[in-house]
Amino acid sequence: MDLFDAIHERYSYRGALLPTPVPRADLERIAAAGLAAPSGCNAQTPRLILVDDPALLAEAAQILGGREVLATAPALIAVLIDAAPEPTYEGFAFQIEDCAAAVENMLLAVTALGYASVWLDGNLRVQNRAEALGALLGVPADKRVRVILPVGRPAGTGARREKLPYTDRYWFNRYEARD
Amino acid sequence: MDLFDAIHERYSYRGALLPTPVPRADLERIAAAGLAAPSGCNAQTPRLILVDDPALLAEAAQILGGREVLATAPALIAVLIDAAPEPTYEGFAFQIEDCAAAVENMLLAVTALGYASVWLDGNLRVQNRAEALGALLGVPADKRVRVILPVGRPAGTGARREKLPYTDRYWFNRYEARD
Repeated sequence: MDLFDAIHERYSYRGALLPTPVPRADLERIAAAGLAAPSGCNAQTPRLILVDDPALLAEAAQILGGREVLATAPALIAVLIDAAPEPTYEGFAFQIEDCAAAVENMLLAVTALGYASVWLDGNLRVQNRAEALGALLGVPADKRVRVILPVGRPAGTGARREKLPYTDRYWFNRYEARD
Repeated sequence: MDLFDAIHERYSYRGALLPTPVPRADLERIAAAGLAAPSGCNAQTPRLILVDDPALLAEAAQILGGREVLATAPALIAVLIDAAPEPTYEGFAFQIEDCAAAVENMLLAVTALGYASVWLDGNLRVQNRAEALGALLGVPADKRVRVILPVGRPAGTGARREKLPYTDRYWFNRYEARD
């Protein structure tokens, strides 16, 4: 799929996914897309767990609150960063950025391969869900599940949420310039 | 360009850029790609300033420490988020993630259109550079330049930095599983 089509067709899908398994070759292609993203100081911090074991998927969905997209997902990708990121430049760490760039690449790859997904993050930060999911997947104490991406073929139709006109969000040469 | 080609051909370019101006239509296409990225709770927080005025580019390069890629850039994109992001979900704000996803989309668009760029972030956080650049571009006190992307045709050749094998960074079903 053309890059610009993938960018503009990507949307957040929260409905049911079909039970059809996602071939591991596709999961690995999505993972490689994520891991090809840039990282601050090339520290390559994100790690991924590609979950396709039905028993683990069922437990993960329960930990994460039973949303439809998770309860029906034939696969999910857990994105990990360090629990306490070390600074890599002048006292700053960039692992949140590294993770987000990897996630965006994976959402585009998901779109190009005909799957649907949604970036789940805040959902993990409440009720000790990240910790419980980490325990389920054998994540060591120094790593933390930061983002979850369910992956599968959508059972229903979805659409992008409405967005502001892009021309209200960029300007040439000066903030809010109108010329 | 195919999505996967763009993802795997993108690299961070720090050398000289050619002085050829970047057509505004290309800058707008890159901007739209960035603004099409997802954002936490659909808050659509990033704002962009597309800088192509030669006097502003020269001042910006000086503020940012005179790196070759900035000193020669015929255009740059300043990505803004709120100076003090408001929480949008359970006390959490997602503007750093929103910004990073937009930046990654823009880097892929830059690649597909035959330009080169590099994600500059830490560089802005020292010596009050973000504040000085904000003042130059008329950015109000409640917004902050978080990332800068120089954009232009590369004068030299560049290459991706070496990366760990991807298979050392993902596993199926369990952290560090080897099966």
